[in-house]
Amino acid sequence: MGTAALILLGNGVVANHVLRKNNGHNGGFLFITFGWAFAVFTGASIAAPSGAHLNPAVTLGLAISGKVSWANVPFYFIGEMAGAIIGAVLCWAAYKLQFDDHPEPENTLGIFSTAPQIPNVAWNLVTEIIGTFVLVAWILLSPVAAAASPNGVPTFGNSALGYAGVSFVVLVIGTSLGGPTGYAINPARDLGPRIAYAFLLPIKNKANANWGYSWIPVVGPLVGGALAALVYLAVHNLT
Amino acid sequence: MGTAALILLGNGVVANHVLRKNNGHNGGFLFITFGWAFAVFTGASIAAPSGAHLNPAVTLGLAISGKVSWANVPFYFIGEMAGAIIGAVLCWAAYKLQFDDHPEPENTLGIFSTAPQIPNVAWNLVTEIIGTFVLVAWILLSPVAAAASPNGVPTFGNSALGYAGVSFVVLVIGTSLGGPTGYAINPARDLGPRIAYAFLLPIKNKANANWGYSWIPVVGPLVGGALAALVYLAVHNLT
Amino acid sequence: MGTAALILLGNGVVANHVLRKNNGHNGGFLFITFGWAFAVFTGASIAAPSGAHLNPAVTLGLAISGKVSWANVPFYFIGEMAGAIIGAVLCWAAYKLQFDDHPEPENTLGIFSTAPQIPNVAWNLVTEIIGTFVLVAWILLSPVAAAASPNGVPTFGNSALGYAGVSFVVLVIGTSLGGPTGYAINPARDLGPRIAYAFLLPIKNKANANWGYSWIPVVGPLVGGALAALVYLAVHNLT
Amino acid sequence: MGTAALILLGNGVVANHVLRKNNGHNGGFLFITFGWAFAVFTGASIAAPSGAHLNPAVTLGLAISGKVSWANVPFYFIGEMAGAIIGAVLCWAAYKLQFDDHPEPENTLGIFSTAPQIPNVAWNLVTEIIGTFVLVAWILLSPVAAAASPNGVPTFGNSALGYAGVSFVVLVIGTSLGGPTGYAINPARDLGPRIAYAFLLPIKNKANANWGYSWIPVVGPLVGGALAALVYLAVHNLT
Repeated sequence: MGTAALILLGNGVVANHVLRKNNGHNGGFLFITFGWAFAVFTGASIAAPSGAHLNPAVTLGLAISGKVSWANVPFYFIGEMAGAIIGAVLCWAAYKLQFDDHPEPENTLGIFSTAPQIPNVAWNLVTEIIGTFVLVAWILLSPVAAAASPNGVPTFGNSALGYAGVSFVVLVIGTSLGGPTGYAINPARDLGPRIAYAFLLPIKNKANANWGYSWIPVVGPLVGGALAALVYLAVHNLT
Repeated sequence: MGTAALILLGNGVVANHVLRKNNGHNGGFLFITFGWAFAVFTGASIAAPSGAHLNPAVTLGLAISGKVSWANVPFYFIGEMAGAIIGAVLCWAAYKLQFDDHPEPENTLGIFSTAPQIPNVAWNLVTEIIGTFVLVAWILLSPVAAAASPNGVPTFGNSALGYAGVSFVVLVIGTSLGGPTGYAINPARDLGPRIAYAFLLPIKNKANANWGYSWIPVVGPLVGGALAALVYLAVHNLT
Repeated sequence: MGTAALILLGNGVVANHVLRKNNGHNGGFLFITFGWAFAVFTGASIAAPSGAHLNPAVTLGLAISGKVSWANVPFYFIGEMAGAIIGAVLCWAAYKLQFDDHPEPENTLGIFSTAPQIPNVAWNLVTEIIGTFVLVAWILLSPVAAAASPNGVPTFGNSALGYAGVSFVVLVIGTSLGGPTGYAINPARDLGPRIAYAFLLPIKNKANANWGYSWIPVVGPLVGGALAALVYLAVHNLT
Repeated sequence: MGTAALILLGNGVVANHVLRKNNGHNGGFLFITFGWAFAVFTGASIAAPSGAHLNPAVTLGLAISGKVSWANVPFYFIGEMAGAIIGAVLCWAAYKLQFDDHPEPENTLGIFSTAPQIPNVAWNLVTEIIGTFVLVAWILLSPVAAAASPNGVPTFGNSALGYAGVSFVVLVIGTSLGGPTGYAINPARDLGPRIAYAFLLPIKNKANANWGYSWIPVVGPLVGGALAALVYLAVHNLT
């Protein structure tokens, strides 16, 4: 349910920006980064009872660092993907009239999934790895996240503070590392809506779902999350 | 008094954006969403002693979920509507010279009440239902809201945290779901100022108050709030 | 010192917006309202040890409501005015090269003091009264402000929360009520820099200091603050 | 590691704004000030275990005011400079394709280091001194910073609040004092990336590194930090 809220609100702000006949049409990139940042706030704080998991890259980082049991990882992955698909469908419903009206329906994929400004396998991976590394390293290393987490498990507890903190980090990853690839930094955030776009949503004149790129915002974030967990373990063992 | 502050400040930011001869003229939609978000902050935190009720859809959701007595619901509804009308009048007073100067007074309804970009009964209802569902589901389900609420009643207590949280959620509903219908997500926020516009305010060359649409931002939010409460009850009974 | 920081940072954001040869040139009104909001955050939290007084209208409201001794009021007023003048001088120093370069020095008064978009004694007063009423009513009535205040005196204590709260309120007063008159909502914020502009700063081709308007952003805020205090006393006596 | 995060994210937002083929291209100055503000949030909260030192001017101010041992100062300086250089390299890697594509590579220095809008040794120093003075004075004098700091050493502890506070102050220094010189307010933030730009990064057609200006964003912030510490000691001895 948290990931559904995340994707509804995250896809929603891009739909508002992209589709004409919207109050937020051409709202700009600061507008989009605020939308995604507080989509994370809303999604993570709704998902708190089940551990605030919205992102397989974060789940993987927590598993490697020993904070989440490996046995639970598949269930988190399934929940995150299912939520992402549901969120994308709800976003389509909220903007149904705008999709019908849109004069260039073939450019609607960008509402749901990311794409690189300049396609290049290696360097697009680097950008996604660095962005996700910052997110997961902050969650694992910052005492802010740890203090907000009962029992050291980063759920950010019951106060708005931890969720505001992670939102601020997602905001700055967007402003500062979102330029080249659109900062997926979350495999479910990118693959789930891509599946919804390709197979579920009745948008006419759809673009193809750009499957050739689709593995990069899955693999890049998982690598970035794993690297952050390894750095965490190294720092932890040193001290 | 909280709803009066909400509407004064929420209508005010739109007046600032719409009417020429204003410092914030053409401030844009991010500007408007920030104005409404912190209008909620201000209104809710002023209204805290009486339960921070600003929104009949939230009041209904709280009543269905058993957190507010049904006997009090009519009084909340009356207070919310009265506050909304007073807020709209104060907004008009603050911008009186700008209203007089405005060259297109027939487009002033949008300062007070919402309108769809593309009119369509069913899908406009869907958009308002989804937006309000997110708001009320967050208030009922998020442990952030619950933790901020003494005795489990979502008044958000005495700390700025809960009110900041609900403002962030309203901000993201605006950026992400406010495109198609202007995110009324609150029957009083829309109907109260519409009544003030139609019957009280001495604006010359007024537009008609678009009564044909006026029931959608009333019914949609009430349905969304009720659905969120039913989900809350279902989740609550499962766990 | 708090008021000096407030005015340095508040005047500074307008200088950045107005004067060409600045990174923030033409930053827009959202930019300006963020600058003033967090200028209040910075000024109020620096001034906390002496009660976080930056604004004679707030000081007056606190005195009428019995939260500050009348004997201290003159000292607060003098400190607020002195700080405002010092802040304006520092702002000029930070932007000295930009002032020298500015091709229209006769429009520099707006960096320091407010002016109405449409001059009108009565309605400009109304706008300033409403804006200041919201600020002082929030400080007196919101349990957020009270909770942040040791002994019930609104200094907002030692946590960032109370100061963030008052910044959010100032942000929304700016976005929502700052259009017609530039939201002075503080006599010292307007009169102090006006005095500095008229008598101290070596800006060539200065405009006249618009003394004819200068009393409105003094009297309006004082009336708004006093009205808020009377409402507070009425509410307090009822409950 | 904190300074690396600061510079990665701070340089990153400028790269996003400057380089074409970016989602945030021409994002504007409010966009940039938000990026730097929450870069400070992220960097400071990651660096909390080692004292949240990101800035030699702050380190110097803390040493003068007796809150940090002089023996540790050289290690902090080295760590801050090394982190800044690493952050600049990571920023280049994240934007590698954009750098290659950029039609005017000779203007890329501004992504890494600051430059004055109007060069003038004395007044550029004044602007940097005032900006840094506000930052360090806030850290030393505000009870918000002190309350967030265990044992009175400004590390801002384990809660998001202190870090949010310092981010708000950096945001307003940017909006309000960042116009003339780009608010280095941190010697490592400016000199480290300049060294990386000049000697490490394989950007073709690089501009020269403007060494003639490079000492001003080092000396100005150190002087501003030292002045703030002297004011702190004076205030402290008076009370």
